[in-house]
Amino acid sequence: MPDARFQPLPGFRDFAPQECALRNYLFQTWRRVAHRYGFVEWEAPTIESTELYLKKSGGELPTQLFRFKDQGERDITVRPELTASLGRIAAAYQREYTKPLKWFEIGSCFRYEKPQKGRLREFVQFNADILGEGGEGADAELVALAIDCMREFGFTAEDFVVRISDREVWLRYAAEHGVPEEKVPDFLAVIDKFERDRPEYCQEKLDAFGMKREDLVAFITNPPAGCSPRFDAVYADLQARGLEQYVKLDLYVVRGLAYYTGLVFEIFDKGHHLRAVAGGGRYDGLVATLSNNAVDMPATGFAMGDAVIAHLIEACPAARALRDAALKAAACDVCLVLAASEMRPQMLGLAAALRDAGVRVDLPMAPAKLGNQLKRAEKIGARHAVIIGAEYPEVELKNLSTRTSVRTTPEGLLEELLGDGE
Amino acid sequence: MPDARFQPLPGFRDFAPQECALRNYLFQTWRRVAHRYGFVEWEAPTIESTELYLKKSGGELPTQLFRFKDQGERDITVRPELTASLGRIAAAYQREYTKPLKWFEIGSCFRYEKPQKGRLREFVQFNADILGEGGEGADAELVALAIDCMREFGFTAEDFVVRISDREVWLRYAAEHGVPEEKVPDFLAVIDKFERDRPEYCQEKLDAFGMKREDLVAFITNPPAGCSPRFDAVYADLQARGLEQYVKLDLYVVRGLAYYTGLVFEIFDKGHHLRAVAGGGRYDGLVATLSNNAVDMPATGFAMGDAVIAHLIEACPAARALRDAALKAAACDVCLVLAASEMRPQMLGLAAALRDAGVRVDLPMAPAKLGNQLKRAEKIGARHAVIIGAEYPEVELKNLSTRTSVRTTPEGLLEELLGDGE
Repeated sequence: MPDARFQPLPGFRDFAPQECALRNYLFQTWRRVAHRYGFVEWEAPTIESTELYLKKSGGELPTQLFRFKDQGERDITVRPELTASLGRIAAAYQREYTKPLKWFEIGSCFRYEKPQKGRLREFVQFNADILGEGGEGADAELVALAIDCMREFGFTAEDFVVRISDREVWLRYAAEHGVPEEKVPDFLAVIDKFERDRPEYCQEKLDAFGMKREDLVAFITNPPAGCSPRFDAVYADLQARGLEQYVKLDLYVVRGLAYYTGLVFEIFDKGHHLRAVAGGGRYDGLVATLSNNAVDMPATGFAMGDAVIAHLIEACPAARALRDAALKAAACDVCLVLAASEMRPQMLGLAAALRDAGVRVDLPMAPAKLGNQLKRAEKIGARHAVIIGAEYPEVELKNLSTRTSVRTTPEGLLEELLGDGE
Repeated sequence: MPDARFQPLPGFRDFAPQECALRNYLFQTWRRVAHRYGFVEWEAPTIESTELYLKKSGGELPTQLFRFKDQGERDITVRPELTASLGRIAAAYQREYTKPLKWFEIGSCFRYEKPQKGRLREFVQFNADILGEGGEGADAELVALAIDCMREFGFTAEDFVVRISDREVWLRYAAEHGVPEEKVPDFLAVIDKFERDRPEYCQEKLDAFGMKREDLVAFITNPPAGCSPRFDAVYADLQARGLEQYVKLDLYVVRGLAYYTGLVFEIFDKGHHLRAVAGGGRYDGLVATLSNNAVDMPATGFAMGDAVIAHLIEACPAARALRDAALKAAACDVCLVLAASEMRPQMLGLAAALRDAGVRVDLPMAPAKLGNQLKRAEKIGARHAVIIGAEYPEVELKNLSTRTSVRTTPEGLLEELLGDGE
């Protein structure tokens, strides 16, 4: 446990090397899968003009901003999310890239949340977005990417489900049931809370629309065939990829934010113990809003946070095994151990040669007992120790997992280590 | 050029995919070399209590802080540098790690600089530090890491030099020339500006110490042999690694900051056109200061910024060639091209199979003309196009650099592409 006297601010996290290695495992996995899907990375400034975020957001976000006046009296905000910057930057650069844009981002976001368990004030989001393509093919590509991120972490259809919904189904339902246009957001808000509200309270809210809760339950449980042609198209697309077992039509999902326009989705662990692992959907009007109508591009995207996925991995043995193997592979290859102090120059020369060849090498920077040097080799997770004694250039190569040793030369060492899957 | 209507705040940068790829090339190179040296990555919170930075810093830093009151009336600062957090986190976690600690970090830092060319308000630093080892072996390991970062970028001894100095030489000089202890910082400040000040102005400042500028020039130009045993030890260490041609003893270097205690160094391009590429040194007292004397560890470290190194790469043909090859290799492997729309499900199935095998695949998400699809393949820098027509499962694999084509099957495709150096 870290020393409690040296804490970060509440809601902020320190990433000492072990925590950072876990974080990097998430980043590398997201990046690898995104690249496989032909997505390219972008990065937003950490601080933007507050105006940009206010343009985009309704809801509770404005009260949670790290919003300040800078020394030049500018109203600035440390970014609470990435989509506002995405819209601005895509509008600025869209002429330089062939459309549709397939862009992803991995970065810290900041919200002044009430301090409570699992609520962070600095958290990391993986965002993937497709801009400039309004058809279901883009929605399907995006859902497939989200599914493959989960698969790459080691999760199966037993572990998670992508709940897909279509806001247009609810817009049509509202219209057919006489909800006046200005009340539609309120109606969507009732659906958004449907699963979590006590039934009586939900019914109270539905009274305003002259609806019965059980009618809605029936509609959601048995949605009429063909109610969402968009979902059907996405389903068929995923089927062609062999990914249909991960998704279901689930009209409970609405997504709170006002700007979603079509297909929306959330990923949940099947135990449903945690908040959504990921969420997103189509937001066709947002780029126009953010660019003051200068640029109009249909868009669809999702975000996946680092905290929930890290917990899920910890709870799933297959995912944990994959992660631990990756962490082990990321450790040092070789720890040099100096058994004869007069051989220090030779050891340094050997370290340089190994490193030039791409081997990850640690070494004793000051005289130390042999036992302590070997202990360090173990502690840093090195796969091998190389013991350099008076008989150099003959050295001892010790495999620290199998505990076997061979005597070899610097040249033999390189062959041995580079043949090792480097 | 980006559309000027959608700018970030002054001093902040947007990383659209092309800019982000350049940035990632720097990050990957730094990470790769740091791992080769057995350094492990850590990450500081982006925002810390202001007190932490004030504890550490003198000089001009306090006036440049992005310093605010948060909603809970805490005095907070968006990090201007990483060493203060390093000291705090190392103090908190040091019992869990075997010493010496070899830690690196790559992250954004924020300073409210006057807007001028090349001065950014958000910039990235690569920081590498060794904590818990006070001997010259740690200084040498650190300098070697800095040199190998430069070599990895493609720079040679023709391009850059590591100017190493030793504050103790100047402390002794000051003592021997009767500088009273409380005036030593002022004296160091004169040396720090020695090269940049007009000679007459420099002499004016030296008058206060009863020194002649030409005596100092003579001392710096011909430092007495053995004046810095620490430099001699580092030089011998680097010689054993074959890296001595990159360094020289250069007493002009002092480093402005008050907390440096021993060996200090800066990397400059030999044209000396730009600010220092990197700088650092030993700061043995700082961890104690930051931890209110609870933890005392000797420490040495350096930082390398992203902006100067990016300019140097651009100016050096060999470095540029390395970078461009890396960027090219990072692009998409394959762009699928659909020549017969009824084959869309087959195309999606093929995409899934290729991606599952680790191939980076882009595909048309909506019907598009063959010519436009091929144009996209070129524009995104894909190495191959795979044309899927009515004769599927036979497909055409087109190498977009050699412009040659072969007809093959999905199985043949996988072999062909995975044998391709994936």
